[in-house]
Amino acid sequence: MRKAVRDTVLQDLGESVGGRISTSESVLLQHGSDMSYHTPALPDAVVFPQTTEEVAEVVRLCREHKLPMIPFGTGSSLEGHLMAHRGGISIDLSEMNRILEINVDDLDATVEAGVTRIQLNDSLNPKGLFFPVDPGADASLGGMAATRASGTTTVRYGSMRNNVLSLKVVLPDGRVIRTSSRARKSSAGYDLTALYLGSEGTLGIITELTLRIYGTPEAISSAVCAFPTMQAAVGCVIQTIQMGIPVARMELLDTVQIDAVNRFTGSDYEKSPTLFLEFHGSEAGVVEQAEAVSAIAEEAGGGDFRWATTAEDRAQLWKARHESYFAALALRPGAKGFITDICVPISRLAECIEETQEDLSSTNLLAPILSHAGDGNFHLSILIDPSDASELEEARSVNDRLVKRALAMGGTCTGEHGVGLGKMKYLEEEHGAAALDVMRSIKKAIDPDDLMNPGKILPGPAISQ
Amino acid sequence: MRKAVRDTVLQDLGESVGGRISTSESVLLQHGSDMSYHTPALPDAVVFPQTTEEVAEVVRLCREHKLPMIPFGTGSSLEGHLMAHRGGISIDLSEMNRILEINVDDLDATVEAGVTRIQLNDSLNPKGLFFPVDPGADASLGGMAATRASGTTTVRYGSMRNNVLSLKVVLPDGRVIRTSSRARKSSAGYDLTALYLGSEGTLGIITELTLRIYGTPEAISSAVCAFPTMQAAVGCVIQTIQMGIPVARMELLDTVQIDAVNRFTGSDYEKSPTLFLEFHGSEAGVVEQAEAVSAIAEEAGGGDFRWATTAEDRAQLWKARHESYFAALALRPGAKGFITDICVPISRLAECIEETQEDLSSTNLLAPILSHAGDGNFHLSILIDPSDASELEEARSVNDRLVKRALAMGGTCTGEHGVGLGKMKYLEEEHGAAALDVMRSIKKAIDPDDLMNPGKILPGPAISQ
Repeated sequence: MRKAVRDTVLQDLGESVGGRISTSESVLLQHGSDMSYHTPALPDAVVFPQTTEEVAEVVRLCREHKLPMIPFGTGSSLEGHLMAHRGGISIDLSEMNRILEINVDDLDATVEAGVTRIQLNDSLNPKGLFFPVDPGADASLGGMAATRASGTTTVRYGSMRNNVLSLKVVLPDGRVIRTSSRARKSSAGYDLTALYLGSEGTLGIITELTLRIYGTPEAISSAVCAFPTMQAAVGCVIQTIQMGIPVARMELLDTVQIDAVNRFTGSDYEKSPTLFLEFHGSEAGVVEQAEAVSAIAEEAGGGDFRWATTAEDRAQLWKARHESYFAALALRPGAKGFITDICVPISRLAECIEETQEDLSSTNLLAPILSHAGDGNFHLSILIDPSDASELEEARSVNDRLVKRALAMGGTCTGEHGVGLGKMKYLEEEHGAAALDVMRSIKKAIDPDDLMNPGKILPGPAISQ
Repeated sequence: MRKAVRDTVLQDLGESVGGRISTSESVLLQHGSDMSYHTPALPDAVVFPQTTEEVAEVVRLCREHKLPMIPFGTGSSLEGHLMAHRGGISIDLSEMNRILEINVDDLDATVEAGVTRIQLNDSLNPKGLFFPVDPGADASLGGMAATRASGTTTVRYGSMRNNVLSLKVVLPDGRVIRTSSRARKSSAGYDLTALYLGSEGTLGIITELTLRIYGTPEAISSAVCAFPTMQAAVGCVIQTIQMGIPVARMELLDTVQIDAVNRFTGSDYEKSPTLFLEFHGSEAGVVEQAEAVSAIAEEAGGGDFRWATTAEDRAQLWKARHESYFAALALRPGAKGFITDICVPISRLAECIEETQEDLSSTNLLAPILSHAGDGNFHLSILIDPSDASELEEARSVNDRLVKRALAMGGTCTGEHGVGLGKMKYLEEEHGAAALDVMRSIKKAIDPDDLMNPGKILPGPAISQ
């Protein structure tokens, strides 16, 4: 763009959002990078709209000038979703952070896309309510919807796919739609809500969400249990789910990860594959669930449950789990995490983890494993020296083999982090050329100018036949 | 089509499915009608493929000759989905009825689209497993996916949206895709599974499904409870859900419906709004749930629970519920049911039912109400004399007012029956013109020749901007 034109466009954009626009280098860098190993790529400007109407006006201006648009929540993405490698405008939704409505009778809440999950829970908890989806980071709910996020409680409460009732979306042409109503279910036409969940900003910009919320359980208890092998731990998980025990959380840490947690938090967990468990229900129900899982664990060769029943102990326990990533990083000061995630049918989980550990042992890389075991999903945090190109290369190879292993086991290249740039090259192998063409034709139909987060999710152009 | 061409095409189609083609009047009539009030519209022929490859070949031939295609499961649809009002080929999937795989460890099953839900459960139950989605009719699982069906257990186990992991689909161009893997969750690209759920045959033909299945609960118990008013009954439902009590079924029958059941089955339920409840869990858990709901019911003014704990008593109780429709028809011998369904946020359910009853009382129509109350969903079975045009007209008006009432309350024009022909005219009011355009553009991108169940779901042509 010529400088004069560019200046005019940026001025118009700035006016459309009440002057809340930035082109400062540090702001551009913050918005053109994420928490991943992907190389930053800066947008031309960042705008900070406060209403859906402002977003729509920004979209219309960007469309008029053929500028790429990249929605931005909190920047906690892990697969390069936010990189502006074709330039354009980063649309930062963090100032759209109002909680618009909480309906206690209907157990739903409507929020703007910039509201984070912790912010929402801070509003809900005093009313005896909570929103369960917990991806670890305090991500924005718009971002969580855009990546179809899930997390520690998905085994019981489902992912964003199960907990979003409706979305407000600004289309690539600037029109605004609501994808569904507040009804709990509907068969009225194509499921646009589901289409936008996981669309990573490539089909429009989510500005509002209506979410399912839940009553706080009467009782909660948590426990930690060590197992002699990965097989034993996963066996306990499979058996628990088969018996229909409604565990709320069932997180698996491998030996490297539990060692990292011990070093980082001063805890003294046994150095072996370990389950972190949580039970939600009535007082009696929680006791019954815990006894049942404890019996299953014992039969699988697991040790005693270490209980955390007071709120403080539980907070401590889950702090250890949630700080796993920082604990991992502390294993190698100065290292950066190359984080990847896959998901397989749970019957293949132990095998997939063990083959991955074996693969890792043939490299020089240290990489703790953390699994949402109840879903068959796990993360690998490969600790690399960011200045060492050969380590990055080796991590890429490990990741490549991991994804192919998961696909060969009937799994998916990403359970919850999304495609972004990082997983794009695996989509055809996972879905096949024809399914990818269906996705491409949808993208083309809804965003014909390819301006919405272009170059993400869908590799190459190839609508055949 | 000229007769000579037509004969050649039908011969080619017949050969593509091993000769399993019919043009007999009775077969055409069976395939061009459903269980609804909609006028039958006959296809030119019916084919009975036995494999996905045969379906693909049929699709390629139909595409070549620009013949409309309408997938057919069991014919239990209620909104005119099957009517061949533009002629074409009905693709009857009932001979694709193999159960391909049951994975106990992963709790999933892969079946062909013609398998019915009862057939699947007959295979699963001896293994201590079950598939929960229960729309009443013994529908095919392909049809249930195509209409995003739900039913009595959705309050606990979700609808088809929550219980389909992956689909095999023949695209309008004859290519075959699998929409997802067997992994429990994925963020790998657009959610094609969700897109095909509820697409009613307009985007391709579902030939296989991978479904979530569940372990049979250790204990099940059922109860019936009468309430003085609709408000009281719904109040009990709302309170139960708010407390997070995982009821498996929570069905509400209005006074007209319970009277019909009494007359039809010889039961002696109290003539007032009545909840049919079911609890799944451990022995102790079921007792605890039932005690909690019983206390809530009492506080809401409900009567005593009438228990059904033995398997026979339970079967009897749910038979009464499942035969509601036939019981309703028996209220007026010779009548046909004009069945409609809407869904509203549960806080509006009692109001919506009461206003509908009031509306009905100003007409001459008899119309029992049956509600999946935990979802805010209810059905009206308007009993009409099929030979009396004025009654059909009056039923249409009642339906029209019901849908508008539901939409005004933030609900949807169909909770589970789908759009078909019957609800098409309400889609724009429900979703808005822009959202409808997004749906139209998806339809156009995937089925550019408009051959897949044409003229269903999406009204008129209007892709604007």
